[in-house]
Amino acid sequence: MAKAIPFVTLIIFFLVSTAFAQYQTGQQGQQYQQQQIQQQEARQCRIQRITPSQPTQRIQSEGGVTEMWNEFDDQFQCAGVAALRNIIQPNCLSLPNFSPSPRLVYIQQGQGLIGMSIPGCAETYHSGQQSVRGGSIRTRQGEQSDQHQKVHRVRQGDIVAVPAGVAHWCYNDGNEELVAVSVNDLNNNANQLEQKLRSFYLAGGHQQIYSSVQSPQQQQQQKETFQNVFRAFDENLMAEAFNLPVEVIRRMQQEDQRGFIVRVTGEGMRMIRPEEDEEYEQRYQSRRENGMEELYCNLKIRQYLDNPKEADIYTEQAGRINHANGQKLQILNYMDMSAEKGNLYPNAMHAPHWTMNAHSVFYVTRGDAHVEIVGSNGQTVYYDHVKQGELFVVPQQFVSSMRAGNNGFEYVAFKTSSQPMKSPLVGYTSAFKAMPIQVLANSFQISTQEAQSLKYNREHQTMLLPLRNVRSS
Amino acid sequence: MAKAIPFVTLIIFFLVSTAFAQYQTGQQGQQYQQQQIQQQEARQCRIQRITPSQPTQRIQSEGGVTEMWNEFDDQFQCAGVAALRNIIQPNCLSLPNFSPSPRLVYIQQGQGLIGMSIPGCAETYHSGQQSVRGGSIRTRQGEQSDQHQKVHRVRQGDIVAVPAGVAHWCYNDGNEELVAVSVNDLNNNANQLEQKLRSFYLAGGHQQIYSSVQSPQQQQQQKETFQNVFRAFDENLMAEAFNLPVEVIRRMQQEDQRGFIVRVTGEGMRMIRPEEDEEYEQRYQSRRENGMEELYCNLKIRQYLDNPKEADIYTEQAGRINHANGQKLQILNYMDMSAEKGNLYPNAMHAPHWTMNAHSVFYVTRGDAHVEIVGSNGQTVYYDHVKQGELFVVPQQFVSSMRAGNNGFEYVAFKTSSQPMKSPLVGYTSAFKAMPIQVLANSFQISTQEAQSLKYNREHQTMLLPLRNVRSS
Amino acid sequence: MAKAIPFVTLIIFFLVSTAFAQYQTGQQGQQYQQQQIQQQEARQCRIQRITPSQPTQRIQSEGGVTEMWNEFDDQFQCAGVAALRNIIQPNCLSLPNFSPSPRLVYIQQGQGLIGMSIPGCAETYHSGQQSVRGGSIRTRQGEQSDQHQKVHRVRQGDIVAVPAGVAHWCYNDGNEELVAVSVNDLNNNANQLEQKLRSFYLAGGHQQIYSSVQSPQQQQQQKETFQNVFRAFDENLMAEAFNLPVEVIRRMQQEDQRGFIVRVTGEGMRMIRPEEDEEYEQRYQSRRENGMEELYCNLKIRQYLDNPKEADIYTEQAGRINHANGQKLQILNYMDMSAEKGNLYPNAMHAPHWTMNAHSVFYVTRGDAHVEIVGSNGQTVYYDHVKQGELFVVPQQFVSSMRAGNNGFEYVAFKTSSQPMKSPLVGYTSAFKAMPIQVLANSFQISTQEAQSLKYNREHQTMLLPLRNVRSS
Repeated sequence: MAKAIPFVTLIIFFLVSTAFAQYQTGQQGQQYQQQQIQQQEARQCRIQRITPSQPTQRIQSEGGVTEMWNEFDDQFQCAGVAALRNIIQPNCLSLPNFSPSPRLVYIQQGQGLIGMSIPGCAETYHSGQQSVRGGSIRTRQGEQSDQHQKVHRVRQGDIVAVPAGVAHWCYNDGNEELVAVSVNDLNNNANQLEQKLRSFYLAGGHQQIYSSVQSPQQQQQQKETFQNVFRAFDENLMAEAFNLPVEVIRRMQQEDQRGFIVRVTGEGMRMIRPEEDEEYEQRYQSRRENGMEELYCNLKIRQYLDNPKEADIYTEQAGRINHANGQKLQILNYMDMSAEKGNLYPNAMHAPHWTMNAHSVFYVTRGDAHVEIVGSNGQTVYYDHVKQGELFVVPQQFVSSMRAGNNGFEYVAFKTSSQPMKSPLVGYTSAFKAMPIQVLANSFQISTQEAQSLKYNREHQTMLLPLRNVRSS
Repeated sequence: MAKAIPFVTLIIFFLVSTAFAQYQTGQQGQQYQQQQIQQQEARQCRIQRITPSQPTQRIQSEGGVTEMWNEFDDQFQCAGVAALRNIIQPNCLSLPNFSPSPRLVYIQQGQGLIGMSIPGCAETYHSGQQSVRGGSIRTRQGEQSDQHQKVHRVRQGDIVAVPAGVAHWCYNDGNEELVAVSVNDLNNNANQLEQKLRSFYLAGGHQQIYSSVQSPQQQQQQKETFQNVFRAFDENLMAEAFNLPVEVIRRMQQEDQRGFIVRVTGEGMRMIRPEEDEEYEQRYQSRRENGMEELYCNLKIRQYLDNPKEADIYTEQAGRINHANGQKLQILNYMDMSAEKGNLYPNAMHAPHWTMNAHSVFYVTRGDAHVEIVGSNGQTVYYDHVKQGELFVVPQQFVSSMRAGNNGFEYVAFKTSSQPMKSPLVGYTSAFKAMPIQVLANSFQISTQEAQSLKYNREHQTMLLPLRNVRSS
Repeated sequence: MAKAIPFVTLIIFFLVSTAFAQYQTGQQGQQYQQQQIQQQEARQCRIQRITPSQPTQRIQSEGGVTEMWNEFDDQFQCAGVAALRNIIQPNCLSLPNFSPSPRLVYIQQGQGLIGMSIPGCAETYHSGQQSVRGGSIRTRQGEQSDQHQKVHRVRQGDIVAVPAGVAHWCYNDGNEELVAVSVNDLNNNANQLEQKLRSFYLAGGHQQIYSSVQSPQQQQQQKETFQNVFRAFDENLMAEAFNLPVEVIRRMQQEDQRGFIVRVTGEGMRMIRPEEDEEYEQRYQSRRENGMEELYCNLKIRQYLDNPKEADIYTEQAGRINHANGQKLQILNYMDMSAEKGNLYPNAMHAPHWTMNAHSVFYVTRGDAHVEIVGSNGQTVYYDHVKQGELFVVPQQFVSSMRAGNNGFEYVAFKTSSQPMKSPLVGYTSAFKAMPIQVLANSFQISTQEAQSLKYNREHQTMLLPLRNVRSS
């Protein structure tokens, strides 16, 4: 027996070594693998449950806060989107940045100015006192004259389109916080990098001191998402490129504690802009120089989405829906995204429907609602209340219905198609109304009278349904 | 030595515990991983062998049968398609359903009526006796009047286009079984959900009693594929939405034993339709209200693919090919799919060729053929007979050739592009004919005379080649 | 204690068996898994370091050499491209082949003739002495007359577009080696097979004797990449298809030692071609027979990219850039690729910039440069010299800058979009110049004077910057 022991020991050594090796690489690999499996399932929209949620991370900056939803949440993986909310204090500036995926921004509160640097487009805003000769700008008595690309006024209720790769900034020139909710379409064709939110900043950076509620892991994640790409460059190379003293570059690359939203020094930023009233009416005609300019430079990038007079769907007893799609805001065709704003009166219902060609990301701007979503597995994946500030995804083809609470319900929905099509079960444009009565009667084993009621009881409503007792005609 | 034992035991315990833990999670993970690897290889079209196949699963319904090919078969994973065959008994109705991927249907036998609910399109079929005032429909003496969207007559030989997300139904109003073969393009841009066949039914459901030949696993798979999304909704919510008594909804949601194809009660369904002859000639002009209507509402959704007079390729001694592509059937441009029907005379050959921009899914409608397919690995992946009722995939760029058997060969091929381009090696449009003789002579080390024969021996034929001894001119 | 031993032995046996089983399947699986993880990371462009590289593999043929870059290199996985360099000896022919992904070719040296077989397009080049009656070609006194599709003259500096699936060949009719650098866009929509380079040859094949420097693994990889798809076909089937004696087919399918580039027998290939001068001026108008013909048959497939007179960007002190994009070479719109050629004078700088919508594959054609690339992680992923013959990728949105060496720097860059847009940090079209001075001042905490310098110091330059001391005006 004792002779067996050395053999046993040998085997044990072999086992220990292989097991350990496997354990180490395996453990890591398995964890990664589990995550990958889960992520793959989510990205394929095999979803058991939708969970409306609030932002889970926040980045505190000098001039405001950036709040991010957990982009690894199943519902966001399914829709291939990432959502965040920026809160910019008055007289503060969200620093210039760009992203590999297109972004739609809804201005929930406040007002501000947004600028986008579109390469190849002319600087069409000029200050009056400048005299440009041979392209050089002369200053008078220390006052800078300037010229730059168009600056866009944005106000509460606006939807703003930011194409992939375009550097943009936002300045809060109002008296209250500017709150902006953004959704990036990571699965968009424009994004040739990974399915993950990335913002490349030209200035600013992470604050050294994080709020104590965050784990180091979360901090790491934020660092991955937001990056200053200007600082990494060799200072001499940059000095040469900009034809500036290296000390200036060094200051530009310096790390500071301001984060990604900064307070503007002095009494606020002066900027060349036409009178507001003019601007809202103007039809600016710039010189057209080439195809790209025609294509991009003069495209409208914002639309007021909260104008009752321009509602696309309106029911006196139930509310209204406004669309911003490729037909209204042409830039959306290039971005393949769109949005809708819904205002439901108390207890009104959004008809059960499915969106045929897009995922929808709902953000509750006011009030609350009871929502039911039925998934691709034929099971209810959500059946509960949603309330202000929450965000949830209704994947393509999932059937959903919403019933406003006692104080009404307002939402903005971001969609992953520039021409989304909704197919409702109820109302004037419903799938059932399009079918012969006998098809319905035989499908559901109901009488032809009942089938007729099924088709026509709501025939005067579209999408938005008032309470039953407010039954029309 | 004895002292070593406790140490050995400790180590063993450690090993046992870690091994077990790994074994459990690992086993599962590894199995999944093996499947994933295999699936990934198949999806990348690294295929060793193509295997023409019959459907492997069947769902029995009251009014017919749904037969499904195994969508996890390598060839279907490569092409990103799923295939099924519906057999609908006379006076039976395939219940309304929609799918996240576009579908082409070939009517192999029989005739029927197909309806599609396209949201936003008008109900353009009205029964004569109705008087619509303020939108309400009045009935006379208990007879329902009705209005609904266009109903399409389909007959043997038709190809029918069903866009993603459009609810549709099919009624067999003929005297024989209606047999319809469908291919869904799961990889299509329209599908933002997973690469898996899914049909969302508005009515009907799985029968409780399955045929005994099916494993529980297969039953589970079928359940995943076909889902009733109407039943999951809260009955009160639905009653409210439809403005119907809750008892009606309850009946509509009731599980029954009818499956997905149901027998129509009474002597058949009456439906508003123009005279058949009229319809086949009509050029219906509806009011155009908006872009979407123009885009979708009036598009033709079917084409007769078996008309010898409209053959695109015809060789007196060899047969004919009819195409349904984006140029002939405009809706296919939106779906990025197309089809072709081939009728080969006995022993005629389909020239060796590759399809430059699409996978092709062949379904044998009649006869048999000898098929050779050469894969991306330069090896023959198929070299054998195919017979009626079998389905096989020829992936993009794989070179294939078919020789009809003694009774001829008929097929329908579904393609994953709306403008598929075939590049044949032989005949009027062949790759070799486009090359200078000296390029061929030097490529193959043959004489210029032989190269000339290579180019011109078949110059009067295109795609379809008669037997050698029927050599033309 | 001794009693414990059998128990221990049992456990050990269990452990050994499970561990072995796991070891075997696991080892393989884990290796594959590690590779997959790494590949996934690379494909998502989570790149730590870019490494400019030379080709790592070569295939020796009778008439030249095919050199391939390692397509599994992270940078190529990220961009989804594969690169190779063909060197064709004078009077040698690169054999007809096609690929599932579109390809751009830059002619680095020499001249040649390229033919493409586009199915459905007419043979528009006819030899004078032929008399075509009923389509048959008569020969006079043993001299072959011929007709074939257009043959394209290509010369050093040309960029050539080869669409997916189009069979093409190239003949070096000059006196020096023809060197052609090709990039295939594997991620292109046109490619429905795997993300891997594949060339399907109609003739030729691997040489039996490989150079001794290659591992069997490398040889295997090459075999996977380049395949003869003609040889696998049944010889009788082919004889029947081509209506040729089976002995001819047998010779055509015969394996030989010539590889994929072959020496032309005799004193060179005669080919029908217009006078060169004519051709370079001609505007060929063929009969238009259908949409496809209009679409493909008459499209220009080459553009001279090295013409100083047609430079798109030119700075007297710094150099020039020529573009070949969808606006200039329409076929690129169908292929969604483009190219640019840059010629930088000694010590000139290419401004720091990011490409908004495409990956860029740089190939150094002459000279050297110092390159800095900053990645999506905010870190420098490359900061070193690149020299002639090296290839490197700048992924979408990564910010890069290049400074030419003392002998200047010339490159050709292949891009994965037909309309690539570059956003520079410096110069006339820069992101900073588009922003108000105060935005810059506040972003970087610099004075308004410094911000003004930042905007305007380089305002007269676009993309290409001369040395600082050659400061303009």
